[in-house]
Amino acid sequence: MPKIVDHDARRREIAEAVLRIVAREGIRGASLRTVAAETGCSTGTINHYCGDKQALLLTALREATRRVAERMASVQNLETGRERIQSLLEAGLPLDEDGAANCRIFYHLATEGFQDSQLASELANYYAWWRAHVRLAIEDDQRTGSFASFDAETLAEALVGLAEGLGIQGMFDPDRMNPERLRRDLVVMIDQLAAIPEKHARAARIASGNPGQ
Amino acid sequence: MPKIVDHDARRREIAEAVLRIVAREGIRGASLRTVAAETGCSTGTINHYCGDKQALLLTALREATRRVAERMASVQNLETGRERIQSLLEAGLPLDEDGAANCRIFYHLATEGFQDSQLASELANYYAWWRAHVRLAIEDDQRTGSFASFDAETLAEALVGLAEGLGIQGMFDPDRMNPERLRRDLVVMIDQLAAIPEKHARAARIASGNPGQ
Repeated sequence: MPKIVDHDARRREIAEAVLRIVAREGIRGASLRTVAAETGCSTGTINHYCGDKQALLLTALREATRRVAERMASVQNLETGRERIQSLLEAGLPLDEDGAANCRIFYHLATEGFQDSQLASELANYYAWWRAHVRLAIEDDQRTGSFASFDAETLAEALVGLAEGLGIQGMFDPDRMNPERLRRDLVVMIDQLAAIPEKHARAARIASGNPGQ
Repeated sequence: MPKIVDHDARRREIAEAVLRIVAREGIRGASLRTVAAETGCSTGTINHYCGDKQALLLTALREATRRVAERMASVQNLETGRERIQSLLEAGLPLDEDGAANCRIFYHLATEGFQDSQLASELANYYAWWRAHVRLAIEDDQRTGSFASFDAETLAEALVGLAEGLGIQGMFDPDRMNPERLRRDLVVMIDQLAAIPEKHARAARIASGNPGQ
């Protein structure tokens, strides 16, 4: 009698193994062979569920995205828009091993994504979805008078960019740009941006020769 | 009689070919074979000068860094600190084909860098050097009363992060985050940050429960 296998559970188990390997050894460490060893499956099974190395990484990216989505969903329970902004942005930073593994997989697939339209569109969707959550939290905080000088969409793009770019510096230069410093930089910037009153924004636009925007 | 070869010139020629290929076809397109075809050299020659694919990309990274350094040096002629900040940050964005090729190589090597200490330290140096230039320009602009609420070092980290993170969104989602929009987001953020007066920064720090920083 054939075994009954929960295919989604098996696929997730494999994806989790890839993320553990990437956290430990980096992208190079993830292969059909090492993932087979990590899960106790045969390479044939891994291949059946996930295909080649590129497809393995894509499976792991989806698992990573699912985890970030879970973190983001829990963020919705936070009381203030400001807390949600902070947590949504921290979800993308390499603040722990899980976060660092996610970042490695994202940046790796990023460089592959330009040649692969399916991958590129998954990554673009991920960013759109992250920005949309941040934007909602910004709009919520704006009701209390914060971020008065900003268009929420522009600010969401910039804040997601800020988190992503700080994360990259954290990956390359972990001694200097350690989790504590990354978090601190993020808090400083969010607080400063939140505190800008409307009139300063107008003054800045006029000074930059673009008063109509 | 053996030919006299300028080794540095040959290496640069190969690096430029790699950058052209990456701009056209992405990282996957760059191999000993395609670089040989692009330069009109044999694969043996390419191998002699640059080693394997990984070493080829590292050579190209150094050429990309040299180009960014050249752009940054020309930035020093700009009159105001503000203009220099803007140009230094734009030098890291995928605003044209050269910029996009640089970004692809950086992000690709970024994911390799964690397993390769030489590469990791080159990349960390590159970021340190970018931040240092941005910091000098910020300090210059602060003499005119701009960015009054910021510690220049923290702001340099954040602005480099912002540019990097906007660049990544530009790579994945080029239709929405096109060069015009990337530039606009950068200008909006720089102008807003520059216009924050000292007292708002203090108020923000007190509001965030961290008045002593």
